[in-house]
Amino acid sequence: MNFQEHLQQVKKQAPLVEAITNYVTINDCANILLSLGASPAMCESADEAYEFTKLAQATYINIGSLTKEQELAMLQSVKAAAEVDIPVILDPVGCGAIPRRIDFINKLRSFGKISVVKGNIGEIKTLAGATTKVKGVDSLDDGEGAIEVCEQLAKKWNCLVVATGKIDILTTGAKTATVANGSEMFTKITGAGCMLGALLAGFSGANPNHLFEANLTGLITMGIAGEKATQLERGNLPGSFRSYLIDEINQIDFEIDVSLANYKIH
Amino acid sequence: MNFQEHLQQVKKQAPLVEAITNYVTINDCANILLSLGASPAMCESADEAYEFTKLAQATYINIGSLTKEQELAMLQSVKAAAEVDIPVILDPVGCGAIPRRIDFINKLRSFGKISVVKGNIGEIKTLAGATTKVKGVDSLDDGEGAIEVCEQLAKKWNCLVVATGKIDILTTGAKTATVANGSEMFTKITGAGCMLGALLAGFSGANPNHLFEANLTGLITMGIAGEKATQLERGNLPGSFRSYLIDEINQIDFEIDVSLANYKIH
Amino acid sequence: MNFQEHLQQVKKQAPLVEAITNYVTINDCANILLSLGASPAMCESADEAYEFTKLAQATYINIGSLTKEQELAMLQSVKAAAEVDIPVILDPVGCGAIPRRIDFINKLRSFGKISVVKGNIGEIKTLAGATTKVKGVDSLDDGEGAIEVCEQLAKKWNCLVVATGKIDILTTGAKTATVANGSEMFTKITGAGCMLGALLAGFSGANPNHLFEANLTGLITMGIAGEKATQLERGNLPGSFRSYLIDEINQIDFEIDVSLANYKIH
Repeated sequence: MNFQEHLQQVKKQAPLVEAITNYVTINDCANILLSLGASPAMCESADEAYEFTKLAQATYINIGSLTKEQELAMLQSVKAAAEVDIPVILDPVGCGAIPRRIDFINKLRSFGKISVVKGNIGEIKTLAGATTKVKGVDSLDDGEGAIEVCEQLAKKWNCLVVATGKIDILTTGAKTATVANGSEMFTKITGAGCMLGALLAGFSGANPNHLFEANLTGLITMGIAGEKATQLERGNLPGSFRSYLIDEINQIDFEIDVSLANYKIH
Repeated sequence: MNFQEHLQQVKKQAPLVEAITNYVTINDCANILLSLGASPAMCESADEAYEFTKLAQATYINIGSLTKEQELAMLQSVKAAAEVDIPVILDPVGCGAIPRRIDFINKLRSFGKISVVKGNIGEIKTLAGATTKVKGVDSLDDGEGAIEVCEQLAKKWNCLVVATGKIDILTTGAKTATVANGSEMFTKITGAGCMLGALLAGFSGANPNHLFEANLTGLITMGIAGEKATQLERGNLPGSFRSYLIDEINQIDFEIDVSLANYKIH
Repeated sequence: MNFQEHLQQVKKQAPLVEAITNYVTINDCANILLSLGASPAMCESADEAYEFTKLAQATYINIGSLTKEQELAMLQSVKAAAEVDIPVILDPVGCGAIPRRIDFINKLRSFGKISVVKGNIGEIKTLAGATTKVKGVDSLDDGEGAIEVCEQLAKKWNCLVVATGKIDILTTGAKTATVANGSEMFTKITGAGCMLGALLAGFSGANPNHLFEANLTGLITMGIAGEKATQLERGNLPGSFRSYLIDEINQIDFEIDVSLANYKIH
């Protein structure tokens, strides 16, 4: 698996990533994409998202806020992405707690194609139709049977599924990997999941024909950066960790860091 | 006053706090609640706030942005909170400068019950009908006669009133405390007031039957964390202070920090 | 050029700056204005912006998000600013990539007067009707012929034009300056342009009768703060740089820093 090649493609192409995302972490999503070397743009006007998405290399759809105008913009962005054949990365925030979000996701799917769905294990189980436990936007699920559920959803939607938890899962339905990189600090700040989703959109945009490898690289990049940030002075405190995480994304170099990658292809 | 018990209840219960809040500091509000140990969720869709609030342990309503959709979401959130009997914490941002916000607050009050109103002294005086001086969203009031005005508002609205200033005031109308903790740096960053409001929602959600003690603990927690953050290297500079403040909220432990509490029960 | 006098006027007056700006960097804009000593307020409700702007000393209009409600608020803010004769600072984010934004800017101009337009060189060229290359919200333009284009736009709109790039340009059409201060790190974080626009609104609000000098001071203040932030430990990493930049704005003192000013009056 050539992680360095996937990372270098992002830095070389600086893919334009359209992101329609929640206002809680919108700044973090933009900053982490810039730190990686991608080119984010949060064009969320319902009058602009269709046209603007056609200029982009990937579109990141995060339903955390889901204002009325964002809904309209997301539908148009997914439609445009289908027309110009760029990857759509969906972050189904809160779909376990708020049933109408499932309806909205189904509507989104009828407007275009989801290439990658990235959620916590509770959200992925909800989308797959399995029972799960959530608290607001967080998963209380222990991940039992998680790989099977991810594979089911990947086959059902014909897309790549990324489920985050203590062990992250990535699957096409036919090919599956697990990643053990990451930091407990990801649960102490808001937006670790959103930032990961944004990063995956950056990697997907630069490497659209190799989504499994590109997203695996993204998952590992995020995990290693989190580990390094945690080890810094004050890195175990959430305010400082948040800044360091964005710093460390900028510094990842698989020529050096490849030994830290902790993953398994199943 | 058992501050440690109130703090530990937050960490143990990790109360789900619904927050509909301005976009300027929405990220800070989420991060400070996570740092404290609570579980924030910013569900602000007018199609979701009613249902989602019923899952929460407290709801934080901050009228700093007040977009049309937020207005609709806030009214529904306050209604839902009344139905499931969870505390509503209101932050009446800008009500001194923008008269229509008073109308909106009165409308909110007709949809449910405000449990805690937390504002700067200028805002609290405005709500109580007293004359005051404001500049935009900031108070220029010197706080003269402040305790009496807070007590009047608490009796009039039958709620807990928290007024911030050089000395913070907290009163049920019958029982009053003042808190002298805090930092001048709170005025050099945006969102110190919003973050305090979010924290108070966390404490209120975990301890809804003891709102006076819970909110007093919250005020003192914020104040001590601000003092500690200011004393760190670069802590007297606003960008660094903002990160350190969130760090220090995470570190408060009244087994150790109780001696720093600087308050008086009147 | 008395930079210190312009800076001290901001700190002395603490001008109330109304800002209607994109949600990606709204927090950064508020924090940098507070760090400078100004008094920001992001009042963006379509029901409030007209009345609130009349209380302000300057209004900052940044079209990065451009939700429907923001559009309505911006039109009213520009109208109110004309009525009370305060400076309007326009940040035409994305006007090179999204043609309808040009239409919106023209509509804005028919509601009032733009005092300062601040964009990257690609955006300024687009507004002037010249051909340029953009990628999303970023300029790919090398700046050839930039001064002439800026002067044309300044004459056409009868306003101050500020174009950012490797060398920043500031012109009234008759009087032109270039500024070479700044940091490569400005391109590694989101919002450097937005923060500059907000700062310029602060300087313009405090010194409305000397917009050329006030904005030149603002440009140099931002540039020097960026240089100092970059030189700090971890200052070459984007997460840390962002915090340090806001720190360093607070510390600028032209009694000391004037020797760092790297500008030329043409």
